[in-house]
Amino acid sequence: MAAPRSPEEAAAPAPGPARPGSTQASHRLLAYSDALLSIIATVMILPVAHTKIHPDQELGESVQQQLLTKIAVYLMTFLIVTVAWTAHVRLFQVIELIDDVVALLNLACMMLITFLPYTFSLMASFPGVPFGIFMFSTCAVIIGLIQAVIVAYGFYHPYLLNHQIQVSENQTFYKHHILKIILRGPALCCLAAIFSFFFIPLSYVLLGLVIFFPHLTRLIIWCKSKAVGVKEDEEEPHSLESFSFYLSEPLSKERVEAFSDGVYAIVATLLILDICEDNVPDAREVQDKFHNSLIEALSKYGPNFLAYFGSFVTIGLLWFVHHSLFLYITKATRLMGLLNTLSLAFIGGLPLAYQLTSEFAEKSRNEIETIQVSCVITFFASIFQFAIWITALFYERETLHPFARYGGKEHAFMFAKLALYPCVSLGAFFLTCLLSKFSTEIFHLMQIVVPFAFLALRIFVRISLVVIRSIINLSQRKDVSLEEEEACLSPAETLS
Amino acid sequence: MAAPRSPEEAAAPAPGPARPGSTQASHRLLAYSDALLSIIATVMILPVAHTKIHPDQELGESVQQQLLTKIAVYLMTFLIVTVAWTAHVRLFQVIELIDDVVALLNLACMMLITFLPYTFSLMASFPGVPFGIFMFSTCAVIIGLIQAVIVAYGFYHPYLLNHQIQVSENQTFYKHHILKIILRGPALCCLAAIFSFFFIPLSYVLLGLVIFFPHLTRLIIWCKSKAVGVKEDEEEPHSLESFSFYLSEPLSKERVEAFSDGVYAIVATLLILDICEDNVPDAREVQDKFHNSLIEALSKYGPNFLAYFGSFVTIGLLWFVHHSLFLYITKATRLMGLLNTLSLAFIGGLPLAYQLTSEFAEKSRNEIETIQVSCVITFFASIFQFAIWITALFYERETLHPFARYGGKEHAFMFAKLALYPCVSLGAFFLTCLLSKFSTEIFHLMQIVVPFAFLALRIFVRISLVVIRSIINLSQRKDVSLEEEEACLSPAETLS
Repeated sequence: MAAPRSPEEAAAPAPGPARPGSTQASHRLLAYSDALLSIIATVMILPVAHTKIHPDQELGESVQQQLLTKIAVYLMTFLIVTVAWTAHVRLFQVIELIDDVVALLNLACMMLITFLPYTFSLMASFPGVPFGIFMFSTCAVIIGLIQAVIVAYGFYHPYLLNHQIQVSENQTFYKHHILKIILRGPALCCLAAIFSFFFIPLSYVLLGLVIFFPHLTRLIIWCKSKAVGVKEDEEEPHSLESFSFYLSEPLSKERVEAFSDGVYAIVATLLILDICEDNVPDAREVQDKFHNSLIEALSKYGPNFLAYFGSFVTIGLLWFVHHSLFLYITKATRLMGLLNTLSLAFIGGLPLAYQLTSEFAEKSRNEIETIQVSCVITFFASIFQFAIWITALFYERETLHPFARYGGKEHAFMFAKLALYPCVSLGAFFLTCLLSKFSTEIFHLMQIVVPFAFLALRIFVRISLVVIRSIINLSQRKDVSLEEEEACLSPAETLS
Repeated sequence: MAAPRSPEEAAAPAPGPARPGSTQASHRLLAYSDALLSIIATVMILPVAHTKIHPDQELGESVQQQLLTKIAVYLMTFLIVTVAWTAHVRLFQVIELIDDVVALLNLACMMLITFLPYTFSLMASFPGVPFGIFMFSTCAVIIGLIQAVIVAYGFYHPYLLNHQIQVSENQTFYKHHILKIILRGPALCCLAAIFSFFFIPLSYVLLGLVIFFPHLTRLIIWCKSKAVGVKEDEEEPHSLESFSFYLSEPLSKERVEAFSDGVYAIVATLLILDICEDNVPDAREVQDKFHNSLIEALSKYGPNFLAYFGSFVTIGLLWFVHHSLFLYITKATRLMGLLNTLSLAFIGGLPLAYQLTSEFAEKSRNEIETIQVSCVITFFASIFQFAIWITALFYERETLHPFARYGGKEHAFMFAKLALYPCVSLGAFFLTCLLSKFSTEIFHLMQIVVPFAFLALRIFVRISLVVIRSIINLSQRKDVSLEEEEACLSPAETLS
């Protein structure tokens, strides 16, 4: 759809009478942009993770306040970068081929987007000073202008456009439609910048709108359609139906996967970045303090290594679940995109949680709290993945591969995969509440057991399905007709 | 070839009698692995970049020594991770489809690979202690064993294998061949670990062999073939010719691109990671020192922002050149892969160079040195890209798209694109030698001019080709026959 990813198309820039030799497939530009955007989306977790807390200091109110501000900055940055990413996805669904000018303009645009988190954290540190809002808005406006230039350039060279728009008679409509999507955010930011000099709270409301506007309008339309009983697609003009529908599904599956992969990869390696830099003991220190015994010196860093492996395993397995899920998803709707973003935002918090856990592992204070925070973050990250699947099941004909639909070959197995982490983290949470003395042991046991559970999951699912089938068979052997029996057997077909 | 990347193949796990429903296309697993590996390859640049140098301190010998050690660690880590990456590429050229077990084993393997840089830096900090070598070797051996398990699992479930191997009668040969490639490194590491307790220098020689062994054997074969006059491919058994040839080209183009994209993306954002964390001024400090003027407080960080934009622009444009080049490369040979690795290794050093430049921008000392270091790094990063193209031109029928071959439509333009950075950086280097007073101005001018040069490059090339053509025409108008004239015109066909 958006990015032609097959090697053949990518290797050979499609020649033809209408397309000059300089035209290129956009898949690699998009992959690179996705990589940059996913790094930038997660960058603000670093100040959170590096908040220094003395081990003997309780998680007092001042530290909590400081942490909460930083976490809020991280979450807002993540959401804002996601909004920028969504606009970028939509832009390159309209412009399917690129040339050098588009590539260079896109790089300029990327440079400004990577600067957004900084202006945002400036805004959070100095909420009363208009300068932060002004910088942020200026960046957003310039990004919008560059993207508008890309659109104008694309429509001036129509061979770069999506084929459906290229052959359409109503190009001007599409041009205005995509410009509206791209410039909506920057226009709100521009207003926010102006108001920041008069009445700052209004500016923040406007900036909040940038994030939630698309979802709000969607929600209003949905509520209206439920209240009045009008179907959504009837509101759209019939002549433009096919592409309007296309534009209302802004997330191409490949780019959702690429963005998610980037986030998972950078989050999984965040702790090793710190470890490589900070935890190499100093040669002189080893000589003085540890009598030249390197192993003794390293044992001091033990908890850090444990935290690294713990967070890598958890993130790796959550990636594995995400990978399995998206293998059977054929189309990513807007709601699924939102749920995916929320899941990713919680995943960004995991290294922090594990680091806290490791720091307090040997001390008696705060131990339970930090372990519970880890469990809660894991729970939310995985429950949003589960929610993606539930959403997909609602429109299963459009969004799911037949294997994963209800009664499909892989349905029961997918259910087990997605339910494992929510169940385990919730279980660990309540166990630590009940058996607070053994909380560390419970937590480490959970970390060790889960990977093996995934390896043996297929066998578990088969056994439990056989058991369910035989129970159903026994109880219904006599009083059901042949047809009903077939219906009951349908979940058992997952075995085949 | 290796990774089926087209969305259709990826979305629908190929069903069939021989393949159970759990079998999956491997493209996303490989993309995620590439992302992890590229982050890990560049991670050791962080300790280099964070080496604190006082602005009024000269780049004295002790600092130079410290920097050189860290840079050596960075380069060796980069090369070792690349070796691991190459083995990974080859492994997943043999195993083309994955299932859950392979995915989980691969994640375990990735976790250990991400730990390699740490053990390596331990080795560099304590060169006389066997423990570092022992840790490194243990990791390498476990990685090798996990990969061997993946190979065994793949050959036990032949539907996972490359189709060519699947239908071949000589599966055992392929199994031994791929096992040999995967276990060569770990075997050498194992020997190194044993020798580390008796005679440490030999261990280092063995570890060095891990990096250079594949290239050494290749070089020896090449020298032999030149000396004796035997062609390389005649040495290989004819019955296995096609796949042996396939194995001797270990780098699938898609994975080279994915790995390079990851390195470019993480390196481009390295400086913003620091800026977001360190350069947000403290609210109290602003109140006390800068009379509540945020702009004044921020101006202190000006050089950091300049460094960020400078390095982002340079890396972005080098990515752009790389992207343009690989658009016309149809196959990546081993030598091209090596040159690409070297280019990427230098690119990893760019943020460091720019940070040094910014730190010394206002001081008079060391200014020229750091600017020259930046120029040298840019020069090497870009000249290796140029070398990739030259290598590709040597075997242009196999490795290049017709457009980029000599006399092709895009040949002259590609030449200009690849030659721009080497020329500019070399020019800036010698200009700073001659006009040492204006070195900062020259450097900033270079940064500003280059992006515009890229935008206008196509026009430049067209004009210069017209000029060249008319000169040739003028000088040869009278004394050449019709046929010779046509031959002279061939470069001018690039205009069409």
